[in-house]
Amino acid sequence: MQNTVLTYLEERNFKAIRNSFKDINEIDIAELFQTLFDEEMLERDKFILLFRLLPKDAAADVFSYMDSDMQMLLVSSFTDKELQNVINDLYIDDTVDIIEDMPANLVARIIKSADAETRKQINAILRYPKDSAGSLMNTEYIALRRDYTVRQAIDIIRKLGVNKETVYTLYITENRKLIGVLSLLELLTADDDAIVNDIMDTNVISVQTHEDKEVVADTFSKYDFAALPVVDADNRMIGIITFDDAMDVIEEEATEDFEKMAAVAPSDESYFKTSIFKHAKNRILWLLILMLSATVTGVIISSYDAAFAAVPLLVSFIPMITGTGGNCGSQTSTMIIRGMSLGEIRLKDFAKVIFKEFGIALLCGAVLALVNGVRIFIMYNSDPMVDAILLAVTVSLAIIATVIMSKCIACILPMLAKKLKLDPAIMAAPVITTIVDTCSTVLFFSLATKIFGI
Amino acid sequence: MQNTVLTYLEERNFKAIRNSFKDINEIDIAELFQTLFDEEMLERDKFILLFRLLPKDAAADVFSYMDSDMQMLLVSSFTDKELQNVINDLYIDDTVDIIEDMPANLVARIIKSADAETRKQINAILRYPKDSAGSLMNTEYIALRRDYTVRQAIDIIRKLGVNKETVYTLYITENRKLIGVLSLLELLTADDDAIVNDIMDTNVISVQTHEDKEVVADTFSKYDFAALPVVDADNRMIGIITFDDAMDVIEEEATEDFEKMAAVAPSDESYFKTSIFKHAKNRILWLLILMLSATVTGVIISSYDAAFAAVPLLVSFIPMITGTGGNCGSQTSTMIIRGMSLGEIRLKDFAKVIFKEFGIALLCGAVLALVNGVRIFIMYNSDPMVDAILLAVTVSLAIIATVIMSKCIACILPMLAKKLKLDPAIMAAPVITTIVDTCSTVLFFSLATKIFGI
Repeated sequence: MQNTVLTYLEERNFKAIRNSFKDINEIDIAELFQTLFDEEMLERDKFILLFRLLPKDAAADVFSYMDSDMQMLLVSSFTDKELQNVINDLYIDDTVDIIEDMPANLVARIIKSADAETRKQINAILRYPKDSAGSLMNTEYIALRRDYTVRQAIDIIRKLGVNKETVYTLYITENRKLIGVLSLLELLTADDDAIVNDIMDTNVISVQTHEDKEVVADTFSKYDFAALPVVDADNRMIGIITFDDAMDVIEEEATEDFEKMAAVAPSDESYFKTSIFKHAKNRILWLLILMLSATVTGVIISSYDAAFAAVPLLVSFIPMITGTGGNCGSQTSTMIIRGMSLGEIRLKDFAKVIFKEFGIALLCGAVLALVNGVRIFIMYNSDPMVDAILLAVTVSLAIIATVIMSKCIACILPMLAKKLKLDPAIMAAPVITTIVDTCSTVLFFSLATKIFGI
Repeated sequence: MQNTVLTYLEERNFKAIRNSFKDINEIDIAELFQTLFDEEMLERDKFILLFRLLPKDAAADVFSYMDSDMQMLLVSSFTDKELQNVINDLYIDDTVDIIEDMPANLVARIIKSADAETRKQINAILRYPKDSAGSLMNTEYIALRRDYTVRQAIDIIRKLGVNKETVYTLYITENRKLIGVLSLLELLTADDDAIVNDIMDTNVISVQTHEDKEVVADTFSKYDFAALPVVDADNRMIGIITFDDAMDVIEEEATEDFEKMAAVAPSDESYFKTSIFKHAKNRILWLLILMLSATVTGVIISSYDAAFAAVPLLVSFIPMITGTGGNCGSQTSTMIIRGMSLGEIRLKDFAKVIFKEFGIALLCGAVLALVNGVRIFIMYNSDPMVDAILLAVTVSLAIIATVIMSKCIACILPMLAKKLKLDPAIMAAPVITTIVDTCSTVLFFSLATKIFGI
């Protein structure tokens, strides 16, 4: 596709480009622009030419799906008139998203080119804290009065609808307070003369402007809404959040969890948009903390130097035992953290979780210990320097104890974090592994010194 | 809430229960049932009584949001008539979901109570493989003819709409082939006499029945649709998938990634619904593989026994060096795997990723090495048994080399897995940690033997 467009552009065959744009989804056109931009396949001053070939009704949509770098380039090439057209065709929440990533001079230009009403609404949304429901919402929605007839309501929607992001959920307000909702489907299938008041649903689920986007995502996942109303503290209707934004939030939340669970400070930007320096900054703090914590394990190992002087072979089992402990711990902590973030596991389930993980640890520990015991016995049985049975028993006991300990630590710590109102995701693999390393080393050497009588 | 209901039930004040049900969202009612069931707060034979108090139009909805155990209990208590009412009020895709979790005798009862048309559609969906687009879809949608006027189309929707899961996207078919889409918004805002053919969008994005749910989730995330049409190989329209099911898929896919990345075999069931035995089964295979792989590191350590006999202190640095390597590797592999699953990182970006990670590794490695070198020098400078400078240099060099090596391994392996058409998620923390353990141990000891001249 990009090559066809480039060829047409070379040939100055603008009609052909215009025609092919008609058959492509706006999102795919935005992706085309993005590829040409990212791979530097087109000079920077040619993009505005290409953008002017877009169908009029697609331009704003295409613009809204681009990366901020591409948007900045275009905004700086737009005439005032062009900028005005694009901004006034955008949904308010998209304009706000765009503005948030732009330098001040371009923001000023964008806000100036919006009409008075749009400008007021943009400013209103910009006032809400980042990641709050208010910052995600769109202030364009359809509000009806309770005394409308179905026929009147349909007429209003047919007249107003084209500028609203979703018309599929209708909100009934009285003195600006949200008193009911009605799906467009319910409206359409009702009698023409029925009154909105009689068919609306008064049991309204909403979020407040200041609530975190996590609450928004959870509410969407729970109730399967196409749109969620946003109200202020007095239940006055302020805006709506649509399911497509909620889907983005759900993905962002998962990405944040992945990052935190890998001991990386979460970042809003995509991998390639983040500089090497920023990436390093996001990772170094946890690496330092964990590195320094790991020295504890080192100190413990050196304190047992008598043991590994007596049976030097013991040292070679450390990586296997600490590794297994770490893996068992990561499995458990990941399951618990994910379960809590999906709402499947709650704090009051603590006892149930411990019981379950203890059972799992017994089963897994037994299998691992058995396999290991047999392997050690076979490997060292003919070695006159080693008491194969004692070694097999020591390592097997250490393994089963390590598995149980690490699974227990890995379910206690995330739940404790939650209890302390911290994000459980910080108690994921890296932290658990470091703690389990220390504990399993102590376990192993204290067992070994007892069993070998060192 | 549950206590109020229980009290009313005790008092046989059914009217009060019926009234309070009217003010609660169906999903919250289902949750109430579920809590009473899970916590065994109500005898099992009382649930059907409670269910009969639901508003008629809410019953099927509430039923569809329950867990399968609760549903089974109800189905076995339903009269034939009740079952019929519930099943014929459910959306087909919900019925299929319910059926998939039930024992054969109840499935037979459910299918028998559906009307002929519903039964046919249920059977059609059941034929598609699990996790395919076909298994997710709903066969109830609104198809229009291209020659309808807007007025005719609106009338049809008003008549048919109530039984369809979404009427907000309309599909135009000809000889059953999908030739266009039209949003209800576009239809409502068009002239009464306009022809559907002239206002429909012929650039239709669809998925095929056999495609994986991952493709479905990606298409939804990319295009922000409220519904996605599902077609067969000949572009014949078969069904639709709605955004709420897509949201569930997006969450499921993320959960699967979390599980795989923690070396747990992914499972469809929630944490508590999975038995201890099943949990252990899902975890033991990777634990065994990783445990046995870790013995390699052990063998390497014992082969360097001359080194740690000469400088016993060396052994105590192993956990810190391998731990740091593992953490650096986990950070990188998590970022790469998540980036690939979001489509931000593609295989052709390989060189860019390696370059970026190398830079990050240099920065992080330098900081970690410096902090460590200084720490070691301070700690051991006054110790006459140790050459503090040599030790600081050795450990610092080992750290920086380990960081670079582990970040490189951690970006190569997931991308290699993708290239080999494996799931990159298996190359996450546990596997990377095990590999990095071995490599960093070798690195450390070969550096140490060289520097200390052992």
